[in-house]
Amino acid sequence: MYSFELTILGASGGPEGGVTQCFMVRPSGTRGVESICVDGGAGAGQITRMIARYGPYANPDMVESFYANDVEPAAKFFDAYSNMEFGLPSHITTYLENKEGLCNTRMKAIEIYNGIKEYYVTHAHLDHISEMVLNSPLAYEDNPSLASKKIWGLDFTVEALKKHLFNDLVWPDLVSDNERFQLGTLKDLKSHRCSVFPQWDIIPLQVNHGHGAVLTMKRVYSTVYLFRDRETKNCLLVCGDIEADFSLGAEKSLFCRLLKYIAGHVDQGKLRGIVIECSSSMSTDESQLYGHLSPVHLVDALVRLQNMYAGKDSLKGLEVIISHVKRVSARLDPRLTILDEIREQALLKGLEGIIFSMAVHGFTFHL
Amino acid sequence: MYSFELTILGASGGPEGGVTQCFMVRPSGTRGVESICVDGGAGAGQITRMIARYGPYANPDMVESFYANDVEPAAKFFDAYSNMEFGLPSHITTYLENKEGLCNTRMKAIEIYNGIKEYYVTHAHLDHISEMVLNSPLAYEDNPSLASKKIWGLDFTVEALKKHLFNDLVWPDLVSDNERFQLGTLKDLKSHRCSVFPQWDIIPLQVNHGHGAVLTMKRVYSTVYLFRDRETKNCLLVCGDIEADFSLGAEKSLFCRLLKYIAGHVDQGKLRGIVIECSSSMSTDESQLYGHLSPVHLVDALVRLQNMYAGKDSLKGLEVIISHVKRVSARLDPRLTILDEIREQALLKGLEGIIFSMAVHGFTFHL
Repeated sequence: MYSFELTILGASGGPEGGVTQCFMVRPSGTRGVESICVDGGAGAGQITRMIARYGPYANPDMVESFYANDVEPAAKFFDAYSNMEFGLPSHITTYLENKEGLCNTRMKAIEIYNGIKEYYVTHAHLDHISEMVLNSPLAYEDNPSLASKKIWGLDFTVEALKKHLFNDLVWPDLVSDNERFQLGTLKDLKSHRCSVFPQWDIIPLQVNHGHGAVLTMKRVYSTVYLFRDRETKNCLLVCGDIEADFSLGAEKSLFCRLLKYIAGHVDQGKLRGIVIECSSSMSTDESQLYGHLSPVHLVDALVRLQNMYAGKDSLKGLEVIISHVKRVSARLDPRLTILDEIREQALLKGLEGIIFSMAVHGFTFHL
Repeated sequence: MYSFELTILGASGGPEGGVTQCFMVRPSGTRGVESICVDGGAGAGQITRMIARYGPYANPDMVESFYANDVEPAAKFFDAYSNMEFGLPSHITTYLENKEGLCNTRMKAIEIYNGIKEYYVTHAHLDHISEMVLNSPLAYEDNPSLASKKIWGLDFTVEALKKHLFNDLVWPDLVSDNERFQLGTLKDLKSHRCSVFPQWDIIPLQVNHGHGAVLTMKRVYSTVYLFRDRETKNCLLVCGDIEADFSLGAEKSLFCRLLKYIAGHVDQGKLRGIVIECSSSMSTDESQLYGHLSPVHLVDALVRLQNMYAGKDSLKGLEVIISHVKRVSARLDPRLTILDEIREQALLKGLEGIIFSMAVHGFTFHL
């Protein structure tokens, strides 16, 4: 039995837009089109192409790459034990086929877009919000009861969206006086009951994400969301950008606090999946990580979590889905390089039985 | 003899990102990869797919649509007299084929991205800048002498980019203390000599673009760029979003001022092309245009320009390339609806001999 459906609308760490981080999440087996999204770096464009099975979604067995080959076999990106399907969840596809009046791909895409009732944003960096903002006029194609959405985030995220995005200068202010888009502020560590899927509690956890680029060097923050099914207690952890800040010490490291929270609040075996970034490969200098993870840090974090549970084998069967790989200049697809490095590090560091796959846009994981 | 090469990297008026307005412009016949872009709503992602002839660029005869059909014949979008080619300018393709060391599509795309030496931004709305911002880390893949870029705009554009985008909250501040991205402020109506293509003068003209969405209802501005070849005096006019503000009267209408400027500074017959938005079809209520044009307004503006010249036939042979059509919910592709409406209005209003085509991403116009 699965608990969570996770559809990857986008998972790139850039530089190209339209396919950056956006995960559509639903309780397994949900009928209809209702969903929530973590981040909004992808959206209507990818939904449209997924419905049409067009462009990157024309062939379920191949993934666009543009490195050693322009396309690579999809199987290279996934663990053989990952449970996944190509495209949108089958219940959504069935719903679209049976609903009358959706006479073309665009209308079907708007139906799915209307189904996104909430966004949970990790932080306001453009690769995590661009499509959410650009798609927003679509919410005016139907009546408010169908098309309204809520955008949730911690205070630093909501403030940035209000002040720097929906300010008429960068995008029309659709949030100040409007029933279709409402910003909602969550509190760090405070459990929030999801109104779309009331069987879920969603807990936001603030994490570090490096520093500003110049001068002030102010800290930049991001958010991790823990989804917990109230009945089964099964959990899914979805990260945005995150810094391996362990050098701050156990008291000050927000990553350390995150791991402790999970070990303390999620029973062993109940964590069905972790979606986590790994932006850069091991050949990247530490000074060039800019508040992101490399394979060493990612595996280090998982080892810490394993130790907080019962040690060896306590994370067996956990699915770890890697996102946000930066498409830098290289001979080989950095996603494949990083996936190899993570698996190798996991072996070296005594992490056993974890299922590592790459988040590839256009696929749905069942967790 | 052509004067301008205009490659459409993106021309959508949304809601999907990654293919919104970005025009790569070069003097005809330019060898190598150097270019400038007007706006940055598309970029590295589209360049990559154009090189690979992948996704929407797999078939030169078909255009992605997602309305009546998922793809439509390309010929529907262009006038038979338009001079165009599929994909990147042939000199760029030849250059990539002959340059050593570019061993995959990604590396070729970065070479072209490095070739973009300047962006001329019309205004800071996200659909005109998102990819320019998201692509910016790519400029660190090579040394500064190869990868540096300048971003130009009128004061309101440059201020918004600095304050609301490159501020560490929405995107790392890559412009404050950095040799790779420099913001440069242009002055309204003041001719600027293009340093990449010194045969060009570029004149920015401020225009109106509606009002803020709520409360203050402050005016929003945009920019039109006039490119003039110093030798041949041939000109190309590239618009961003623009409002038909003629009701303000000839003294206050910035659109009127723009037309007068053209009629006064560009000799009849020297205007090789106008790229101009037409966001919404004629079925759209005036109150729903939000500072954009519909076919009636676009044709009205051209009639005014025709009258400022010698009247009938004075715009004969002018290419008008339509951009920024909003992909709203409809049975038929709004781009085809709008192109039909414009041609019909032109006939009705006595505009003769103008060549109307749609800006479709993935094609290069020769003007």
